[in-house]
Amino acid sequence: MISKIREGDYVLLYLDDKRTYLVRAERGKVLHTHKGFVRIDDFIGREFGVRVKSSMGVEFIVFKPGIRDYIYKSLRGTQVIYPKDIALIILYGNIQPGSRIVEAGTGVGALTTALASYVRPSGKVYGYEVREEFLEIARKNLERAGLLEYVELKIKDVTLGFDEREVDAVILDMATPWLVVPHAYVALKGGGSFISFSPTIDQVVKTVEELRVHGFAYIETIECLVRRMRVERGKTRPETLMTGHTGYITFARKALKEMPESPIESSSIPT
Amino acid sequence: MISKIREGDYVLLYLDDKRTYLVRAERGKVLHTHKGFVRIDDFIGREFGVRVKSSMGVEFIVFKPGIRDYIYKSLRGTQVIYPKDIALIILYGNIQPGSRIVEAGTGVGALTTALASYVRPSGKVYGYEVREEFLEIARKNLERAGLLEYVELKIKDVTLGFDEREVDAVILDMATPWLVVPHAYVALKGGGSFISFSPTIDQVVKTVEELRVHGFAYIETIECLVRRMRVERGKTRPETLMTGHTGYITFARKALKEMPESPIESSSIPT
Amino acid sequence: MISKIREGDYVLLYLDDKRTYLVRAERGKVLHTHKGFVRIDDFIGREFGVRVKSSMGVEFIVFKPGIRDYIYKSLRGTQVIYPKDIALIILYGNIQPGSRIVEAGTGVGALTTALASYVRPSGKVYGYEVREEFLEIARKNLERAGLLEYVELKIKDVTLGFDEREVDAVILDMATPWLVVPHAYVALKGGGSFISFSPTIDQVVKTVEELRVHGFAYIETIECLVRRMRVERGKTRPETLMTGHTGYITFARKALKEMPESPIESSSIPT
Amino acid sequence: MISKIREGDYVLLYLDDKRTYLVRAERGKVLHTHKGFVRIDDFIGREFGVRVKSSMGVEFIVFKPGIRDYIYKSLRGTQVIYPKDIALIILYGNIQPGSRIVEAGTGVGALTTALASYVRPSGKVYGYEVREEFLEIARKNLERAGLLEYVELKIKDVTLGFDEREVDAVILDMATPWLVVPHAYVALKGGGSFISFSPTIDQVVKTVEELRVHGFAYIETIECLVRRMRVERGKTRPETLMTGHTGYITFARKALKEMPESPIESSSIPT
Repeated sequence: MISKIREGDYVLLYLDDKRTYLVRAERGKVLHTHKGFVRIDDFIGREFGVRVKSSMGVEFIVFKPGIRDYIYKSLRGTQVIYPKDIALIILYGNIQPGSRIVEAGTGVGALTTALASYVRPSGKVYGYEVREEFLEIARKNLERAGLLEYVELKIKDVTLGFDEREVDAVILDMATPWLVVPHAYVALKGGGSFISFSPTIDQVVKTVEELRVHGFAYIETIECLVRRMRVERGKTRPETLMTGHTGYITFARKALKEMPESPIESSSIPT
Repeated sequence: MISKIREGDYVLLYLDDKRTYLVRAERGKVLHTHKGFVRIDDFIGREFGVRVKSSMGVEFIVFKPGIRDYIYKSLRGTQVIYPKDIALIILYGNIQPGSRIVEAGTGVGALTTALASYVRPSGKVYGYEVREEFLEIARKNLERAGLLEYVELKIKDVTLGFDEREVDAVILDMATPWLVVPHAYVALKGGGSFISFSPTIDQVVKTVEELRVHGFAYIETIECLVRRMRVERGKTRPETLMTGHTGYITFARKALKEMPESPIESSSIPT
Repeated sequence: MISKIREGDYVLLYLDDKRTYLVRAERGKVLHTHKGFVRIDDFIGREFGVRVKSSMGVEFIVFKPGIRDYIYKSLRGTQVIYPKDIALIILYGNIQPGSRIVEAGTGVGALTTALASYVRPSGKVYGYEVREEFLEIARKNLERAGLLEYVELKIKDVTLGFDEREVDAVILDMATPWLVVPHAYVALKGGGSFISFSPTIDQVVKTVEELRVHGFAYIETIECLVRRMRVERGKTRPETLMTGHTGYITFARKALKEMPESPIESSSIPT
Repeated sequence: MISKIREGDYVLLYLDDKRTYLVRAERGKVLHTHKGFVRIDDFIGREFGVRVKSSMGVEFIVFKPGIRDYIYKSLRGTQVIYPKDIALIILYGNIQPGSRIVEAGTGVGALTTALASYVRPSGKVYGYEVREEFLEIARKNLERAGLLEYVELKIKDVTLGFDEREVDAVILDMATPWLVVPHAYVALKGGGSFISFSPTIDQVVKTVEELRVHGFAYIETIECLVRRMRVERGKTRPETLMTGHTGYITFARKALKEMPESPIESSSIPT
């Protein structure tokens, strides 16, 4: 089934690798760029991937925004969590379609957007944030990405605890994750994933110490470096500039504290 | 709802960060390790995350296997694609619940397993592989992970083309990805994702050149380095050994070739 | 013996880690900065490391410039070779006090400056460069660093060969190093070091192929990444931005081509 | 002047990039390897770089050992400081021919060997070590490299202070560098270099704090990653395994504490 651009869709107008525009496809609307204006009417009803020309004759391509595009476009004006880190959080944290997960702090919803897209259609993200103005932006970002229905946003201080129980994962992107470790334990199901993203090594140490005290296991901390390549025959090389650090990601799983009371008897050694 | 271990479940018996065992929970069964044996009956019916003792009194924790565990356990004896790379493939490649994707070559199904888990419940992975013996292992790995229903395995040489059309993504993990670029173009929907994983820079250059020729856009090549941290107060440091290279990942999106025929007329410049 | 600042010395006025000024200590002279002016007379005759105040009351420290300072200050307006790479070139290339080395292309003399400082007092650097305007800047940079006497600058195209023989090392920082490999072989003493710095992987491949053809051995290519740390109790973390790539460095040693004619006879096997 | 192999010289017998042998050229001696034996007489009197055949017909190349070879060969059985780190210590620390430097702890002398070679011919390394058995090995390693005359080895606990004054650099490779910062300050000349190598981030934080307290400036901490490339047309790629961490290196310069008493008077503002 061919995927057509419908009125109301969000689209990504791609000029080049550095310049893309996330816009809503509305009849009669025009996107103004320094390379001329693009008429939205030119591509409504066409297939995604279509090329259009601006008034200055410059070519744009109309893409359906991917999750990474929504992440990038929601970052304006706040601290960032990069797609590279989100990717590892999701896979290493075992975030899956159907997962019920708690996230704090939601901020403007960049990570929330990605999480929501992967717990679809039957899962849920409970997003905690204390700053109401951020939560409002998060709501708009989620709405724009068509993912608001998979998220419940909550204005609440998580150092006082979570409302949910038996969740599959707790994901923390906040200044004092170690304060929330006991609450994460309570909220998680047995074996559930604890995930924390922190820029400084001191946050990591405090958090890992708390994890050890509170019965978590399989604790690991990683950092991820992504380097872009400039690919051109005869001139191929890594890019000169790269992001050297965003943060460390700590993963752990909830182990139950009590040991079951069925000791192995020496008489029952199998053969 | 508390998640209990049922008979027939696969479980991950965790001894420490280096030693875990993926076993099927069968009544009467016993897992033999160098730290003594563990009786499966000791944990059937209990909650995931439960701790059990081996015959030597060593503690194991019973986890529900995550996607990463299934990936690691399917790698035996074949070339590997690491979870770090799979994570980026999924997020950057915009693999989503509901996506229809083509993958070649499937090998023993490590990447396939991860892909299948994220396209659930309504998506599908079409996995191509020419080596029948690998496909048989892939089938077992997918079955074990409970994901076989989301995958269609095909013994077929993809340099001859794909059967599918209008797919969301084409993912290549093969020696000659550049030969498949034209077929990927045909199989993809407009704006769909092309993804290729290659160990050598020469494969990357050839593939990117083909992508440029065949009308792909938003082409980028990255490599990902993950470094583990040893976290302990007073002794925190990165791990000494790390994987310095697995492969480069190239992403691109299918742009349509023809330009629509509705040029902007100078009389209609908006104001 | 205490090291005093004498008239005529070059000094490094240090404001903070980002802002330093390389100036000549001349009586009556004044350094104007956006933090006020500093009177040179305030520190002539004092010990290096002394603190002085600008007219705005801002503190500067007067350091003796190190080799790295001279390198940084000679880079203006040209392509750079970073101190990290120079450091590896010198140690891995076995550049030592007394070494006689050939360098091409010299450019504005950043690498030359470092090399000259390490071959002192009895060694020599033969610096080749085809662009006369660069060589003039190189001469000034070397003079300022007090190292001109250890360098012989030559305006000459090295793809036509070197004048020197039996040198300890040949160091290439040029666009087409592979063209110079045969000349390097001729110029080097037996076992001498070949070193080439190149930004692109294609330059490396061509150069290494030539090295193999021309009887070099112990060939290795590396890249070096340096990451800075921000160190502050409770906030320690790597810096956000880093240089992701400067270039690859290839090292090799000249092996003699002919094999000596004294074969081991079976009768003389030692016991 | 052609460089001949003389009796008594140390030579590096090179089999391949992974297997080299550091041996003394003695008449009548034979080197036994798993690729057959090599007769030393076969190459005494020949030029460095000469190829010789073992009794099994396998080719070896006879190189003059470089500083890096001596470093590698002195590492057996002790904690290591890698050549990559030594290279940065020397350049960033401004270790130069003629420098007088203090080093603690010397260990088996790997770093000492490199330092000694670069302060030649008029400089000196004062090497402190508390473990006498290590110092004995260090002495042998330095003797073998022909560098013992540039080093004074001392069995002494540096947390009690250094004997030297007005040195150009103090280099610490020890478990508690922060305890030595005040002594380093006393030993250094104005503007002199402080350098510390530490595996853990906690050592770095403590040391940098002490440096700030004790009047050091221009403080920076870095880590260095070196990645090897496998270069072969059509198969070029970084090596799979790499060393992910050795240690952090901290650099600082001694600033004088007191401010000179010649304040700038407002009447003397230059124009």
